[in-house]
Amino acid sequence: MFSVEVRNRIMIAHSLPDPFFGPAQNLHGATFVVDVAFFREKLTAHNVVVDIGAALDVLGKTLEPLAYQNLDVLPHFKGKLTTTEFLCKYVFDRMAAAALSGALGDDGKTLSRIRVTLSETDLARASYEGPISG
Amino acid sequence: MFSVEVRNRIMIAHSLPDPFFGPAQNLHGATFVVDVAFFREKLTAHNVVVDIGAALDVLGKTLEPLAYQNLDVLPHFKGKLTTTEFLCKYVFDRMAAAALSGALGDDGKTLSRIRVTLSETDLARASYEGPISG
Amino acid sequence: MFSVEVRNRIMIAHSLPDPFFGPAQNLHGATFVVDVAFFREKLTAHNVVVDIGAALDVLGKTLEPLAYQNLDVLPHFKGKLTTTEFLCKYVFDRMAAAALSGALGDDGKTLSRIRVTLSETDLARASYEGPISG
Amino acid sequence: MFSVEVRNRIMIAHSLPDPFFGPAQNLHGATFVVDVAFFREKLTAHNVVVDIGAALDVLGKTLEPLAYQNLDVLPHFKGKLTTTEFLCKYVFDRMAAAALSGALGDDGKTLSRIRVTLSETDLARASYEGPISG
Amino acid sequence: MFSVEVRNRIMIAHSLPDPFFGPAQNLHGATFVVDVAFFREKLTAHNVVVDIGAALDVLGKTLEPLAYQNLDVLPHFKGKLTTTEFLCKYVFDRMAAAALSGALGDDGKTLSRIRVTLSETDLARASYEGPISG
Amino acid sequence: MFSVEVRNRIMIAHSLPDPFFGPAQNLHGATFVVDVAFFREKLTAHNVVVDIGAALDVLGKTLEPLAYQNLDVLPHFKGKLTTTEFLCKYVFDRMAAAALSGALGDDGKTLSRIRVTLSETDLARASYEGPISG
Repeated sequence: MFSVEVRNRIMIAHSLPDPFFGPAQNLHGATFVVDVAFFREKLTAHNVVVDIGAALDVLGKTLEPLAYQNLDVLPHFKGKLTTTEFLCKYVFDRMAAAALSGALGDDGKTLSRIRVTLSETDLARASYEGPISG
Repeated sequence: MFSVEVRNRIMIAHSLPDPFFGPAQNLHGATFVVDVAFFREKLTAHNVVVDIGAALDVLGKTLEPLAYQNLDVLPHFKGKLTTTEFLCKYVFDRMAAAALSGALGDDGKTLSRIRVTLSETDLARASYEGPISG
Repeated sequence: MFSVEVRNRIMIAHSLPDPFFGPAQNLHGATFVVDVAFFREKLTAHNVVVDIGAALDVLGKTLEPLAYQNLDVLPHFKGKLTTTEFLCKYVFDRMAAAALSGALGDDGKTLSRIRVTLSETDLARASYEGPISG
Repeated sequence: MFSVEVRNRIMIAHSLPDPFFGPAQNLHGATFVVDVAFFREKLTAHNVVVDIGAALDVLGKTLEPLAYQNLDVLPHFKGKLTTTEFLCKYVFDRMAAAALSGALGDDGKTLSRIRVTLSETDLARASYEGPISG
Repeated sequence: MFSVEVRNRIMIAHSLPDPFFGPAQNLHGATFVVDVAFFREKLTAHNVVVDIGAALDVLGKTLEPLAYQNLDVLPHFKGKLTTTEFLCKYVFDRMAAAALSGALGDDGKTLSRIRVTLSETDLARASYEGPISG
Repeated sequence: MFSVEVRNRIMIAHSLPDPFFGPAQNLHGATFVVDVAFFREKLTAHNVVVDIGAALDVLGKTLEPLAYQNLDVLPHFKGKLTTTEFLCKYVFDRMAAAALSGALGDDGKTLSRIRVTLSETDLARASYEGPISG
């Protein structure tokens, strides 16, 4: 299995309003360093997994609406616990949809899997990995 | 598959008394940076893989008896070659047992896998990953 | 010149309410990885720059009131632009005061300089370095 | 599953002569930080995945013919698009062959998988992982 | 003294045609991760060292003519040994000129120092630091 | 001021037999990642700070007698507290002597300063920087 992994980042505010989260119930924030890995069994005719330029472009467009935002007030996160794990899946879903739609190029439609990793500090990170199903 | 990975570290002395290990047969030592990843197919009701606070607490308690020790004289390592690989499995077994016992919270009992990675230098690391079986 | 540098981290929300900051005028947040370096011309009788345990303890106590907070509503930051640079100086002032007060041990009083570095993303960081003057 | 991962690096020139690659069609270059992970279900009699000394030696010998070279003029890359993904597979094939030949020691013959990761910048990397089949 | 440091990167080919450089006499290449630190004694009215957006923009424009190039054929490097140290100074000179010209904003004119660091591998890096003199 | 910095590493055992060090009084160990930076005001005729090959060679020879050793039983550390700070100075003295002796090449004799940094964990490091005086 081949992979290519690219990186971007966002700085956001949010709160996790459930006693389970202790002090993180407060409105606080995070820098998320976002790594997205694309997987494919065989390379394309260009000897790549995916068009890296298109991948970076789609990742940038996926993160832009979150950058410098308070996630607590964004309509699509209303009533959600925006944990690091949850945000991994949120980014995954958008990257997978972009792959299937052709936004990563024709070769993007035949990717097998995507993994999204969000590092929240030097000591903790979360990820979501799954197949891309058309 | 979702994951959450957390980090801690220990500084230990040990020797690897077999000619296979060349100069590492000598009593020497290492800083092990320890990353433990927890895996789960679906997030819990709190949108997490595991209670990170509990995970860090259990990891700390697992490493504490090794910290600042000479592994050669600890009774439970008597006659063992305490390679980095071996120590990955040692930490894995304790983290898996903690998960099954409820020490990571009730959600910890339904984790699917754990991976333990020990980095011994900037150039070398080992890992053990396996299922948690009740 | 000798130094010892130790690390901790905080996750905070804040805004930078001035047009100069573009999108960072919004309420957003950051993970700050905080490195504090202590400098001394000659080592102490224990061959150290400072008691690392005491240094870590003071750093933890300095950061704790900021951890998981919205800096915009903390009284001591009222009307301040809490840039990364500003926060470096804020941490520096508290570490320097701790040194002079003896909170880092008697040897802490004779440190020559302190440098505080806050990394806000994988691509950007700020620092403040200055002498400790009694 | 156990793993051990070791690191080396090369600095090379090459071009990617296809319009797909935009500015990377030019003759340019890269530092590739090369991580090779070896996987095994059970540890050997020495409690290791593989003889690290032998692994480092074989990795060094695999990379040496590429180090400080212009890949465009090496006969074995004639007419190939030497993408990072392609080079991961190139290193993989040589490490797998070495394992099967006994160059990693007798235990190397019973490794289950190898993964090769090439980091080309702080923001992008590729990998190839596959089974070792005799 | 305050600092702010930002990062970008380039991938280039070059050779170092002097027997002093051994195998690096060959045409080869490198990824240079470029960190530029700006220093100032007192913060500006906005509590910053420099306008980070402007700094990143100027750094990007400085590196763009080198990106994906063979330095050996660029007219301004004709007959020069383009060592990592030399390239640090090359970037420094352009960043310092930009500061003095106002390209980093009016506050950029009153910066005291700049440091440019180029990391060429995980094991080696070079830097140049100097005052900005009008 | 120009610098070039190179890296190597050692794994050692030692104890710090004084109550000041708490649990580190025990025989334990460490991986020290060793970075040595060489400083020079003007580049040499080859546009370098120092011959990197010679620098790496001297660093390797300096560290080799410590690698895989128990520092407590080495004659030259008899009765010394081998703290990370102390070891920085130990490496510095040997690198400075090598520079003055010509072991780094003729250009090594005119270096202005050397800085040695030992990272002992992901959270702590020490350094010594000083002039080279003939």
